[in-house]
Amino acid sequence: MKQFNKVAIVGVGLIGGSIGAALLKRRLAREVVGIGRRRESLETAKRLGTVTAISTDLAQGVLAAELVVVCTPPGRIAEDVCQAAAACRQPKWITDAGSTKQQIVEQIAQTRQQTAWPPGVRFVGSHPLAGSEQRGAEHSSADLFEGRTVVVTPGADSAVADVEVIGDFWRSLGARVVQMEPGEHDRAVAATSHLPHLVASAVAAGTPKEYVTLTAGGWLDTTRIAAGDPSLWQQIFSSNRASVLLALAEFERRLAELRAALTAEDAPGLEQLLAEAKHIRDAVGS
Amino acid sequence: MKQFNKVAIVGVGLIGGSIGAALLKRRLAREVVGIGRRRESLETAKRLGTVTAISTDLAQGVLAAELVVVCTPPGRIAEDVCQAAAACRQPKWITDAGSTKQQIVEQIAQTRQQTAWPPGVRFVGSHPLAGSEQRGAEHSSADLFEGRTVVVTPGADSAVADVEVIGDFWRSLGARVVQMEPGEHDRAVAATSHLPHLVASAVAAGTPKEYVTLTAGGWLDTTRIAAGDPSLWQQIFSSNRASVLLALAEFERRLAELRAALTAEDAPGLEQLLAEAKHIRDAVGS
Repeated sequence: MKQFNKVAIVGVGLIGGSIGAALLKRRLAREVVGIGRRRESLETAKRLGTVTAISTDLAQGVLAAELVVVCTPPGRIAEDVCQAAAACRQPKWITDAGSTKQQIVEQIAQTRQQTAWPPGVRFVGSHPLAGSEQRGAEHSSADLFEGRTVVVTPGADSAVADVEVIGDFWRSLGARVVQMEPGEHDRAVAATSHLPHLVASAVAAGTPKEYVTLTAGGWLDTTRIAAGDPSLWQQIFSSNRASVLLALAEFERRLAELRAALTAEDAPGLEQLLAEAKHIRDAVGS
Repeated sequence: MKQFNKVAIVGVGLIGGSIGAALLKRRLAREVVGIGRRRESLETAKRLGTVTAISTDLAQGVLAAELVVVCTPPGRIAEDVCQAAAACRQPKWITDAGSTKQQIVEQIAQTRQQTAWPPGVRFVGSHPLAGSEQRGAEHSSADLFEGRTVVVTPGADSAVADVEVIGDFWRSLGARVVQMEPGEHDRAVAATSHLPHLVASAVAAGTPKEYVTLTAGGWLDTTRIAAGDPSLWQQIFSSNRASVLLALAEFERRLAELRAALTAEDAPGLEQLLAEAKHIRDAVGS
């Protein structure tokens, strides 16, 4: 497995902190620089042992790094990637951990056309399917990526060797790597991640206050992700708007079928629809 | 705490088995008779120590019991309660564990008008907010009701003393008891339990097969209850149709707000809606 002398992580929250902790625990990097805006959270991340050094200056922090992982919220990723690229003095790889890909890849390509990147800087996007409704380096874990899926999303102009480096990086943290085209990735996670979040939020919001004391396991599970950071999720939804709206339409078609069977008192039809949903759920496991 | 000489449990699945196990573990009943249709599952329940005796004959099984707890699916509860009542030779209390109440209470009242119950037989309905997507006595637990809420739903003609007996029974298993009118109970659980299930089923059913490998924590949580027994849930939905449709309308109103903000690219509005949902979710805890 490839070992790095120095890795820079931009945005040291749950994901960034876990990457740092995993790199250090597995002795895959000698030095991990945590880069962010707020010194206080960087110091927390360092105290927790998820990074070995910190910097509030992105250009300075990424200088000698061989790999830069941008873990900021989706709305800032493209800008941070381009800033990291511009600050380069030597060849390096840059990847990110954003939950959406198409818009980020397009924004990066646009900037790249306007301002040429230094030679030898290669970007390949990633999305680790890990994390939770919790935030911050204090919830990070060196084992967060163990057995989890990471989608690597090369653009049309990515070199196979660079895609391999980024894939190997995630595999070295214990992840299973899947390769997808950015737009395809976005359509997939719209259905498997963004729609569930939207629906969980609507269930939570629609629960009458006077009945909240009667919530139990089903409600708790179904609404858990609605506790996620509103600002982060607004950025995720906004950067994957078209695909989220398509997934929403498909969800509403299924919900309309269930409602029609219930309204018509069609007990066998309703049971059949519930059985089809159970079949899909059972196939995935716990 | 009241101790029983003999308790009869009709339907020894997850809930019925857990009641038996809790009664025996806490030494609240000398004898627990498990009553059901399939001898095989009754024998499993007995082997697991959740009941001390079994019977496939309801009238026979409830004979000397002081308390009968009917834990069959909603579509069969009223009939089983009435059969248990008719078989009585001595005063006793009957309760149930059905997820809906109004229709069951009405069906029982109707039968009672047509066929007088033996004197001294008192029914008060219950709904323990416990259980999961799993089924069968093999998943039962003596601690299932520990700290959980049980709603007791007296009818207008219930005697306060009988409501107290049934409340005490659930409290003796470790539960917190709440008293509600049957119709009010049904409106509450439509929002806190039945709607989440309907929505979870629609999310699972609407997930394209080719994307299922990209599911992670959020999808798993949101769809977990969709693995529940389709026949049981069809009966729950059907016996609470009007309230489920009302809760569904409120959910759709919230979802429409989220969609409108997303469609209009109203980032602050979308973030605000997500924050409101998070606020409700955070207030409930994990």
